Amino acid sequence: MLEHDYIRDGTAIYERSFAIIREESDLSRFTPDQADIAVRMIHACGRVDAAEFIEFSEDFVPAAREALQNGAPIFCDAQMVAHGVTRARLPADNDVICTLRDERTPEIAAKLGTTRSAAALELWRDRLEGAVVAIGNAPTALFHLLEMIEAGGPKPAAILGVPVGFVGAAESKEALATRSGGVPWLIVRGRMGGSAMTAAALNALARKGI
Amino acid sequence: MLEHDYIRDGTAIYERSFAIIREESDLSRFTPDQADIAVRMIHACGRVDAAEFIEFSEDFVPAAREALQNGAPIFCDAQMVAHGVTRARLPADNDVICTLRDERTPEIAAKLGTTRSAAALELWRDRLEGAVVAIGNAPTALFHLLEMIEAGGPKPAAILGVPVGFVGAAESKEALATRSGGVPWLIVRGRMGGSAMTAAALNALARKGI
Repeated sequence: MLEHDYIRDGTAIYERSFAIIREESDLSRFTPDQADIAVRMIHACGRVDAAEFIEFSEDFVPAAREALQNGAPIFCDAQMVAHGVTRARLPADNDVICTLRDERTPEIAAKLGTTRSAAALELWRDRLEGAVVAIGNAPTALFHLLEMIEAGGPKPAAILGVPVGFVGAAESKEALATRSGGVPWLIVRGRMGGSAMTAAALNALARKGI
Repeated sequence: MLEHDYIRDGTAIYERSFAIIREESDLSRFTPDQADIAVRMIHACGRVDAAEFIEFSEDFVPAAREALQNGAPIFCDAQMVAHGVTRARLPADNDVICTLRDERTPEIAAKLGTTRSAAALELWRDRLEGAVVAIGNAPTALFHLLEMIEAGGPKPAAILGVPVGFVGAAESKEALATRSGGVPWLIVRGRMGGSAMTAAALNALARKGI
């Protein structure tokens, strides 16, 4: 039996990974705080070229961090995003909420003629004002959020718009970047994104460092 | 208020997405069953070039499908993988198990001098023989699995080796492909991978079609 030779120390693995990412990716467009978040997002997808597609509104990082420190809840469109949030990093034991599997969601979806991912957002209204929203899966959820805001609904403190895919993902993120109604945003332009990149961004916002 | 124009029907979104992926990606290396799985993995990461890195051992798809149909448990290295499995698609109400947050795991990690992700696998031994294993996050977990098998431990029916990252990910997947001890495998060569691609592969194995 051959012994496999690999690093077994979790912190050392993170440090080495982040060093490789900083060496190989072009982070020059970002502020130091934005770069920290981009590094974790790249780490989550294994592609340094993801840096080209990550974009922040100028006020996003301070707005999201302030909201989290003040105890804002985090609303997620997908269970995978919610389960990717490292609870120990959260600054105020923030609630992490996903209503996709709420028993009311299918009925709302049928009534509104949309996906369950989009319909689930209707159950966020009570606590959506000032919350942090993380859309990491469904373009329809991001479009629905923009429609709720445009219709005069509650405004989150910050929106992570990182749905992945081939139908509507690029368009929904472009819509967020151009028509967020003044809400600070983070997007990954184009098709890339997903629950892992979204959770990684949340974990980077929640606490600086490894 | 402008109305956003987008597809709101979940099944139509899947169908259109999969059609785009089949049009744009080179799936010619794959059997039809392998291609179905690759399409879902590409869907999960938003990159058609992922097709270049996906590789199956010849016996992987039939072995994994037979195990699932016979009720094999699915062992996952990360909560995100476990929560990405669509339970309604599973053919035998299969158990989906992640022991990362088991209270015994930190002590095992300290004793073995490895990560919690790797140590968590020690708690799989009782039901690992004939199981389906999905490693979607930690290279150390995949290395540890190979060490357990090489040491004469129980053999899974099939291994999805899809950890992501910059330290050990490529190496651990290469090790699986060359030294699996006869266990059928699926890998994504290089740095790409992650919980979403891994869960997508499981969902594709669990049931054919959308």
